[in-house]
Amino acid sequence: MDTVDVVVIGAGLAGLSAARDLLKEGVDVVVLEARDRVGGRTFTVTEADGVVVEHGGQWVGPTQDRALALIEEFGLGTFTQFSDGANLQYSQGKHLEYHGAIPTGDPLQAADLVDAMVELTTKAMEIDPECPWEHPLAVLLDSMTVETWISSQPYCESAKDWIRTLCRALFPAEPGEISLLHALFYFRSGGGVEKMIGTINSAQESRITQGAQMLSKKLAEIVGDRLILEAPVIRIDHDSHGATIHHDKGTISAKRVIVAIPLVLAGRIRYSPPMSGVRDQLTQRSFMGSVLKVHVVYEKPFWRNKGLSGHVTSDCGMVQITFDQCHPDRPEGVIVGFMDSHLGRVATQMTFEERRDVVIEDLVRLLGEEARNPKAYYEKAWIDEEFSRGAYVGMMTPGTWSTLGPHLREPVGVIHWAGTETAKIWNGYMDGAIRSGEDAAQSVLSSLAAEGVLK
Amino acid sequence: MDTVDVVVIGAGLAGLSAARDLLKEGVDVVVLEARDRVGGRTFTVTEADGVVVEHGGQWVGPTQDRALALIEEFGLGTFTQFSDGANLQYSQGKHLEYHGAIPTGDPLQAADLVDAMVELTTKAMEIDPECPWEHPLAVLLDSMTVETWISSQPYCESAKDWIRTLCRALFPAEPGEISLLHALFYFRSGGGVEKMIGTINSAQESRITQGAQMLSKKLAEIVGDRLILEAPVIRIDHDSHGATIHHDKGTISAKRVIVAIPLVLAGRIRYSPPMSGVRDQLTQRSFMGSVLKVHVVYEKPFWRNKGLSGHVTSDCGMVQITFDQCHPDRPEGVIVGFMDSHLGRVATQMTFEERRDVVIEDLVRLLGEEARNPKAYYEKAWIDEEFSRGAYVGMMTPGTWSTLGPHLREPVGVIHWAGTETAKIWNGYMDGAIRSGEDAAQSVLSSLAAEGVLK
Repeated sequence: MDTVDVVVIGAGLAGLSAARDLLKEGVDVVVLEARDRVGGRTFTVTEADGVVVEHGGQWVGPTQDRALALIEEFGLGTFTQFSDGANLQYSQGKHLEYHGAIPTGDPLQAADLVDAMVELTTKAMEIDPECPWEHPLAVLLDSMTVETWISSQPYCESAKDWIRTLCRALFPAEPGEISLLHALFYFRSGGGVEKMIGTINSAQESRITQGAQMLSKKLAEIVGDRLILEAPVIRIDHDSHGATIHHDKGTISAKRVIVAIPLVLAGRIRYSPPMSGVRDQLTQRSFMGSVLKVHVVYEKPFWRNKGLSGHVTSDCGMVQITFDQCHPDRPEGVIVGFMDSHLGRVATQMTFEERRDVVIEDLVRLLGEEARNPKAYYEKAWIDEEFSRGAYVGMMTPGTWSTLGPHLREPVGVIHWAGTETAKIWNGYMDGAIRSGEDAAQSVLSSLAAEGVLK
Repeated sequence: MDTVDVVVIGAGLAGLSAARDLLKEGVDVVVLEARDRVGGRTFTVTEADGVVVEHGGQWVGPTQDRALALIEEFGLGTFTQFSDGANLQYSQGKHLEYHGAIPTGDPLQAADLVDAMVELTTKAMEIDPECPWEHPLAVLLDSMTVETWISSQPYCESAKDWIRTLCRALFPAEPGEISLLHALFYFRSGGGVEKMIGTINSAQESRITQGAQMLSKKLAEIVGDRLILEAPVIRIDHDSHGATIHHDKGTISAKRVIVAIPLVLAGRIRYSPPMSGVRDQLTQRSFMGSVLKVHVVYEKPFWRNKGLSGHVTSDCGMVQITFDQCHPDRPEGVIVGFMDSHLGRVATQMTFEERRDVVIEDLVRLLGEEARNPKAYYEKAWIDEEFSRGAYVGMMTPGTWSTLGPHLREPVGVIHWAGTETAKIWNGYMDGAIRSGEDAAQSVLSSLAAEGVLK
């Protein structure tokens, strides 16, 4: 049986970032990955027709400093998300045009939405992302869902509906599923709602020319043959000296383990001795978002000629949010659409043909008849992925942060935790994943140094 | 490798009841159990001092027909839960006496509580326990927590606090954790709130003389050597013809599988091919209640001499609910207490001595100085049990029933589901567990008959 200093479980951005930082310090690391590829919830495929399909996470923006630094370090390029022309809000049967992050086509609704964004962001900024449970109203905020907050507001119905769409787009989950405290923590971790939903100077500002998965591929090159693919971890035996990790391809021992996968999946590993009740209850009370992401490919980005940005939000249909997804090196017009939350789950129960037809009908309604005959249609249902079980991120159910939050990042003996779900800044984003991996590496390095294992 | 008709996973009341019904029909069954004992969340221990300790489920009452029938069939005895004398409500620093299920010591509060019980039960009776998602307001009721409902009521603060205590006692979970739709379904499944919290003619009416676990032990006798203990299931490979079940002690094939364990644990088994996204999302969104159950043993049931029943509810302390737990064959006075929900989780992080001292202090405050020097103290923290991960029952988080409910009982190919979490009647109770096992057996028998496997 092999013995190393540290085993990292999960070769997404979190696990690979952790491994990279440990290797820098001369630590002997092995990374175990359940899938046959690295990148976790980033997954870039160049299709036979040359179209670059970003099945997973894809955008970076300002203050995502760790993601941007990695892009620069690896000499990768970025390009700006197309946002010229008018955004559309399809609301109560009408197309309303607007510019910027918040719909302004209906002035009354716009006033409500600006109020709502300010209110949510102000509340969010009161949360300490290190310890949301310490907020004076933590228990109260955690005892209600985002839907409870929305429905108790004085805003007009169309504004409320748009906030619901925003919630589904951001997490993605129904507002009735998420703890308000969790939502506020999340908004805080991303620097406020407007920064998270916008394009210009915001979270959807840029894409990586070579695809988002390239970050993980470059990190994996550093890890080299210390990375073992198709090695799902079944069991971790651990004591105060170290751990033995049983996976599909064998067994390996280590002084420390970093589990860099979503909480719900971390809860499915068998631990011996078992996790404490409180740690296990935490993993039981986190669930993954639901999203089915589609790429629809046209000869040309016809919407641009109509003065449209391709960014649409809709209060009906299966696809309620779209963006222009063209690539600067390619001639095609590509729209990326999201079937999220409950609709994403409904979508996975349809046949491929049914789904494709519904998506195209939605795009025709949103962007015009030119959308009727795409060249190609690609899709990815993240809830069906055995080793993600959802996207973009795992969330806390009501009542969890306020009582079990302190167990989120606390190592259990020689086992440390990473993954974007543990991030304080840009939780749920690629940037948060990288930060969480770097934090876990630091935590492991400190504990190894304290033992005198590291010089 | 062995091949049988049906493998049942879990030797609690659900799994064993299923196995029994299958054996009756001449079906070849093997039951796999992760623990070294049967009974699941029932667990009766006779301590060295002769005290019978019911660490788990223990009460039966009217309309729990399947549990009562099994008791009769096995020739087991029952005795009536002691309920003579006054119940106590400790509220805002005062002891208030009452009789019956609902505190009446404070008349204003009593009026509110009667209103609340009627309101909750009336709402609950509108739910069809077969399909709570079909209620016309399902999405709305599911988008709020029980706490949201409580806090929006006009009731006085002490009434609201008592409803919160009731919620913690019944599930046990904080009212801010549970979907209101789930709570109403649960109340419906038990026939209304008052029936569920009361003693006389209610869910806490009787106990089983030989201990609640005896039901499972008797069922296990029928299963005989077809039961394999200490065999946690790791993976189920399945196709349209059958399944291969990998467990700690080997591998076994079957035409059908019944998974008779809580949802969250069913979600931790690896399936090949994996479960659909919607089924998996369901298991991600169910969590187990938190409870630490204590038995405190005295020379005599001193509270009876003071005209007290031993049943107390309290708005402070770690133990907020107690019952007289004396056994008719024994001279000792025993109090059973519950540290539930968040307090249960806090309790597991204390040392044994700290917990015992806190429990005794609580009992002194509630029952008097005579409680200060018990003969013995026994406890069980269900969240720390690897193969329960909580008690009494798994619950649905907000937003789950209304969208993912249809996947709860729907078989996936040759895999059928049981466990009290799937029960329509007395969900969360021993009776529900038995019913769920019997339902699953019927479902398997029908599917085998349709294939012509059974005559």
